[in-house]
Amino acid sequence: MASKFLNLSNTNRAITETEFPVSRIHKLVAETEESFVKGTQKYDFEEIIRADIGVAQDPDHGPITFARQMMALACLPALRSDPMFPSDVKSRVEQLLNDCPGRGLGSYVATYGIEGIRKHVAEFIERRDGHPSNYENIYLCSGSDYILRHIIQAFAVVSNGKPSGVLTPIPGPPQYSWTITQHRMKPVSYNLKYDDNGWSIDVDELKRTLDESRKFCCPRVILINNPGNPAGQILTKQNIEDIIKFAYNEKLFIIADEVYQNNIYSDEKEFVSFKKVLCDLGSPYDGMQMASVMSTSKGYLGECGARGGYFELLNVDAEERYVLYKLLSSNTCPNVAGQIYVESLVNPPRKGDPSYELFINERNKIMSLHKSKIELITENLKGIKGISSIKPEGAPYIFAQMEVPPKAVKEAERQSICPSEMYTTKLLRSTGICVSPGLIFGQIPGRYFFRMSALLPKSKLRSVVARIQEFHESFLLKYK
Amino acid sequence: MASKFLNLSNTNRAITETEFPVSRIHKLVAETEESFVKGTQKYDFEEIIRADIGVAQDPDHGPITFARQMMALACLPALRSDPMFPSDVKSRVEQLLNDCPGRGLGSYVATYGIEGIRKHVAEFIERRDGHPSNYENIYLCSGSDYILRHIIQAFAVVSNGKPSGVLTPIPGPPQYSWTITQHRMKPVSYNLKYDDNGWSIDVDELKRTLDESRKFCCPRVILINNPGNPAGQILTKQNIEDIIKFAYNEKLFIIADEVYQNNIYSDEKEFVSFKKVLCDLGSPYDGMQMASVMSTSKGYLGECGARGGYFELLNVDAEERYVLYKLLSSNTCPNVAGQIYVESLVNPPRKGDPSYELFINERNKIMSLHKSKIELITENLKGIKGISSIKPEGAPYIFAQMEVPPKAVKEAERQSICPSEMYTTKLLRSTGICVSPGLIFGQIPGRYFFRMSALLPKSKLRSVVARIQEFHESFLLKYK
Repeated sequence: MASKFLNLSNTNRAITETEFPVSRIHKLVAETEESFVKGTQKYDFEEIIRADIGVAQDPDHGPITFARQMMALACLPALRSDPMFPSDVKSRVEQLLNDCPGRGLGSYVATYGIEGIRKHVAEFIERRDGHPSNYENIYLCSGSDYILRHIIQAFAVVSNGKPSGVLTPIPGPPQYSWTITQHRMKPVSYNLKYDDNGWSIDVDELKRTLDESRKFCCPRVILINNPGNPAGQILTKQNIEDIIKFAYNEKLFIIADEVYQNNIYSDEKEFVSFKKVLCDLGSPYDGMQMASVMSTSKGYLGECGARGGYFELLNVDAEERYVLYKLLSSNTCPNVAGQIYVESLVNPPRKGDPSYELFINERNKIMSLHKSKIELITENLKGIKGISSIKPEGAPYIFAQMEVPPKAVKEAERQSICPSEMYTTKLLRSTGICVSPGLIFGQIPGRYFFRMSALLPKSKLRSVVARIQEFHESFLLKYK
Repeated sequence: MASKFLNLSNTNRAITETEFPVSRIHKLVAETEESFVKGTQKYDFEEIIRADIGVAQDPDHGPITFARQMMALACLPALRSDPMFPSDVKSRVEQLLNDCPGRGLGSYVATYGIEGIRKHVAEFIERRDGHPSNYENIYLCSGSDYILRHIIQAFAVVSNGKPSGVLTPIPGPPQYSWTITQHRMKPVSYNLKYDDNGWSIDVDELKRTLDESRKFCCPRVILINNPGNPAGQILTKQNIEDIIKFAYNEKLFIIADEVYQNNIYSDEKEFVSFKKVLCDLGSPYDGMQMASVMSTSKGYLGECGARGGYFELLNVDAEERYVLYKLLSSNTCPNVAGQIYVESLVNPPRKGDPSYELFINERNKIMSLHKSKIELITENLKGIKGISSIKPEGAPYIFAQMEVPPKAVKEAERQSICPSEMYTTKLLRSTGICVSPGLIFGQIPGRYFFRMSALLPKSKLRSVVARIQEFHESFLLKYK
């Protein structure tokens, strides 16, 4: 038709020609949900359980009261006479509003976010790492996806006919390669090492991938997700040191996506930030440029809807920072609600504050709920022949490898889809349980995975795993 | 230094090589504020008044209580026992939470936003225009800048060696050309017509600009800001008809940025949406593709910090919509707070609701405050020889033309800056009053403007204008 001035043939090819399988999966789930609710198709289940994303706040526990009180009172200061609000929340909100233009949440704030909150982020990082942090290096942003996109966009150049490349983990968050391709850069996939010790990053593999990639791109950036989604690994300090030295030698800018730093479920391992290791290493490494990303969507806070987050930029000079400033100012400013959740995240109640006890109780309860759910799922999955998984150390996901018989692989080939997607589609349609196929995170060649969230209602966990077992057994039988 | 892997020479050139004068102006204001507060420089004024952006919510009036109550209660439902909350707010929040995954604001929502709110947006548009609106065409987003960026990005292609072009108004919002250039497209500037009847769009000028632009780009999109920032024009229905027909003939996709539709200050003119005119025109125009953009940051609501907004997409088929879906899903979902303000915007209290009376009183008070401030400023500016301005019909800005003597123009040339920027810099440094130079919006060649917000505290308006007058007289004297 003459008036369709936007059509696939004249649309941005970096978008039309790039696969983003997450969209396809979401579409499938939406269609299944619709036919289930409307009854246009008969299914053998009574409800659809979204274990692919799930509710990020533990469904057996509400949000952190302190964070919600901060937000509600900042939004409607007239509530201060309600006895629900403890005195520390009132005085904190008072201070917060003093930092806002017009003493309220209604105005645009500075492009980098509210200065008082940026200062608290810097103090939080100092306490965590034992190294100084300058608030002028802290940028508040609307969620970690937003941050990654803007940092990555700065690297979009073509040198000697080759686009910039970004090293990204396999398996890893699906947004990474999508964001990179959108800006006409090349994702350079490096495989995580997977053995009896769990998942880690192997520097030899980084080197191998990097060298190969020079044929088609100029590698400029390395993306690290620690703790890692979907596999739940926490990198050791030694591993991080090796990666930093590798990046230094190969002139790579490090982006450390550390949004799961508050999702620590291991008794042996603790989270160590890239910034801390960089500073501990001393010269010349502590002069390296790096960005470290944090979000309000994960951990015990889990305020996914708020789209809050920040990044710390290290060793980047004023001129290059101005480039990022220009980029970020396209959005005028980050959303204020997200910034207030950042404030609650980095500056929680302290011992002696009226809010302290409730906060600690809630936080501990949430973390132990996470832990017990992870344990329950991994224990129960162990009983299923043909499914193996490692208990995640950080990040509330189970990344399980499933046996897919050769006949099933052949059928998937005939359908031109990844066996992992065929598997999860069948699982959804026969049990109502929705998990993510490994293909959206990337898989080890010849192996197939699915990712499920551990943050399901406790009352349903056992039956979910039982139904996966039943499905898997019939799947193996069918393709024997 | 060896470890500076990101430097100006290897940074995205679409960003480094593009001027975004807004950043420069903001930097100047920040530096002046700092030296003023710290006392490192002596100034002849007692405070800095930000009339360049200003507090968007009228400083002589708080925010809309209804909208803030909706937000606070949705955030902290335990507040429902506080007698402050009227029953309609409680039942609306109840319904809203039912539409949220996990019955709370903590989760990611769908990429397009919460379905219930999208339906209310569609109903709002139907009531406004008298034409049907399908909620599946409604996309909730984090602010209008965000929307524009994503729509424009879809058009970033190179055909026959030429990048896509986007027609943008001069004067117009500075984000437009910045967003276009960032995606390696070309802004094609068309001048608004400026005569005794005020500002309007001249189709002959559109045609002239378009034809010229074909030398260096393939024009694909026309951006319209109605009501217009900075000049405050409201387009007539006839003018809109002519633009639509022009766009149809020239195969241009229309983006109607209608964020100021609730800032109507004219007694004669009313806002008519592009969608309405398109539908009124009938075939073939009602089959044209178009996007219409709205925000929660403007009008009587003025919730700039929330970054809420939506767009309606007309006559775009599933395949092309999927392109936008992929783009938008890079950010997982729009922020939930912004969506709740959209709900308050499109579905305000109705006659008979407990919240109705307060809402109407507040809305009317805010609008009449806006109007009286605009009148006071334009009346007072009239008394200044060498400054002329037209009372804005929509959008709360005064776009004033100032006389700049040839000697001053010469000095600006020597400094390699626009005379309008030299003027506003001197104004800031000698009076503490910060207004935006015309150059950031684009100016008619040989004429110089500044934009000031009308939404200043009423108590300061007269003295602000008096100080501008004093400054302008001394400026004329100096460069006589």
